[in-house]
Amino acid sequence: MEKLEPIYEGKAKKLFETDDPDILLLEYKNTLTAFNALKKTTMEGKGALNNKISSYILQYLASRGVPNHFVKMVDEVRQLVRKVEIIPLEVVVRNITTGSICKRLGVPEGINLNPPLVEFYLKNDELGDPIVTEDQAISFGWASEEEIQKIKNMALQVNQLLKDLFKPLGITLVDFKLEFGKTKDGEIILADEISPDTCRFWDSSSGDRLDKDRFRKDLGNVLEAYQEIWRRLSAKGEE
Amino acid sequence: MEKLEPIYEGKAKKLFETDDPDILLLEYKNTLTAFNALKKTTMEGKGALNNKISSYILQYLASRGVPNHFVKMVDEVRQLVRKVEIIPLEVVVRNITTGSICKRLGVPEGINLNPPLVEFYLKNDELGDPIVTEDQAISFGWASEEEIQKIKNMALQVNQLLKDLFKPLGITLVDFKLEFGKTKDGEIILADEISPDTCRFWDSSSGDRLDKDRFRKDLGNVLEAYQEIWRRLSAKGEE
Ligand SMILES: Nc1ncnc2c1ncn2[C@@H]1O[C@H](COP(=O)(O)OP(=O)(O)O)[C@@H](O)[C@H]1O
Ligand SMILES: Nc1ncnc2c1ncn2[C@@H]1O[C@H](COP(=O)(O)OP(=O)(O)O)[C@@H](O)[C@H]1O
Ligand SMILES: [Mg+2]
Ligand SMILES: [Mg+2]
Repeated sequence: MEKLEPIYEGKAKKLFETDDPDILLLEYKNTLTAFNALKKTTMEGKGALNNKISSYILQYLASRGVPNHFVKMVDEVRQLVRKVEIIPLEVVVRNITTGSICKRLGVPEGINLNPPLVEFYLKNDELGDPIVTEDQAISFGWASEEEIQKIKNMALQVNQLLKDLFKPLGITLVDFKLEFGKTKDGEIILADEISPDTCRFWDSSSGDRLDKDRFRKDLGNVLEAYQEIWRRLSAKGEE
Repeated sequence: MEKLEPIYEGKAKKLFETDDPDILLLEYKNTLTAFNALKKTTMEGKGALNNKISSYILQYLASRGVPNHFVKMVDEVRQLVRKVEIIPLEVVVRNITTGSICKRLGVPEGINLNPPLVEFYLKNDELGDPIVTEDQAISFGWASEEEIQKIKNMALQVNQLLKDLFKPLGITLVDFKLEFGKTKDGEIILADEISPDTCRFWDSSSGDRLDKDRFRKDLGNVLEAYQEIWRRLSAKGEE
């Protein structure tokens, strides 16, 4: 597979076409951004870690019945995925309150959310990814009512499966962001990545942050945290 | 009824206790504020107009089966209302897109919303009345799932009744804000005010703004617009 110009270069990944029109090549970059890319750095090895972590998790989810875009890893930083039309909503699932929601709504940090909270944010960097209600998403055509319901159910299923995966590894899943897309057959599948860039992982005993919050809050040892996530996942064995 | 210290003074109204513990006196002020009170003025006669307009509308709604706090007008600027525990959510109903929603979500002005859109905003001036999803409102205890459903249905019913009221008067109801409260018996009723301060009214033929947007956008003739709303309502006759 020859390497062409990317058809899309985002904040953390590049997308390339392949010989197969239904398959894309997803390359994980070493860039780390936060606060809508106002804060930015490069971290050697981050792309490879996220490629491995996301591949592992997406395979785990597929084997538990969550259809997703992952096909296979190609090399250290690249994986093949099924091409989808991304639904322009970032889907956030929260088990514990922290971060933007506490600031915006004045709610305390650390509240256990039971049932977990599912939120939709419009995927639009210029507007700062504003939160949208389900009714707004439907009214403005970002997703149909049926798609919203489907996505919500899938997001909650992913949450349960991820909690099951990480709990025995001593990791508390605080919250995470998902993206969904539509295949050419109109099927809704999970897409994008699941990694320490897109999840909040807390060490269950020490409470240490093992995710991008280390970068957001200048806590240091960012790469080490990502390595620790991969160490615990891979110690568990192949899925 | 002797005039005491208000138990609450807000941006547009004052609340007094009365001899009856279930009844409050609501006094309409001449203050006009916008953008979370960053912009502020006083307008002689505004309080009296809103008192009359809101009394008219709340009586109209009561007679059409929408339980609300209105008891009776006492004088030009004051009315008696049933005391409720206000649910801390501002409920916005939109028939046509305009204002904050267009800016925040990048959607065009003037889209017809069918069905109308119901939105909830946390009533918290310090936080700038942030929008909340139904799930957030339930998770954080601002309303129960049943209350949200009840409020949404009542808001849509109010919308239909207000459109029926204003259409024959040559007025297009663009959007409006409601507040709901719980009586001591736990019944949810409509409270607060419905006036050109809380609704967007457009003249159906000229498109002229007949509401607080004249103040927000410095269009002039603010009081005249409020008077025009009252003129058309009162010409229709008593409810
Ligand atoms: N299977 C897929 N098909 C098409 N696009 C995808 C797929 N998976 C992810 N994407 C999109 O590819 C991009 C990944 O790059 P990323 O750096 O995360 O971009 P961004 O800065 O827009 O978040 C995202 O825009 C994401 O929505
Ligand atoms: N029936 C009622 N019982 C108790 N409080 C009410 C009732 N109707 C309205 N209120 C509250 O009274 C206040 C009215 O004053 P206003 O100037 O609108 O205040 P604000 O600046 O908080 O919007 C609001 O806080 C409103 O929620
Ligand atoms: Mg991304
Ligand atoms: Mg008010």
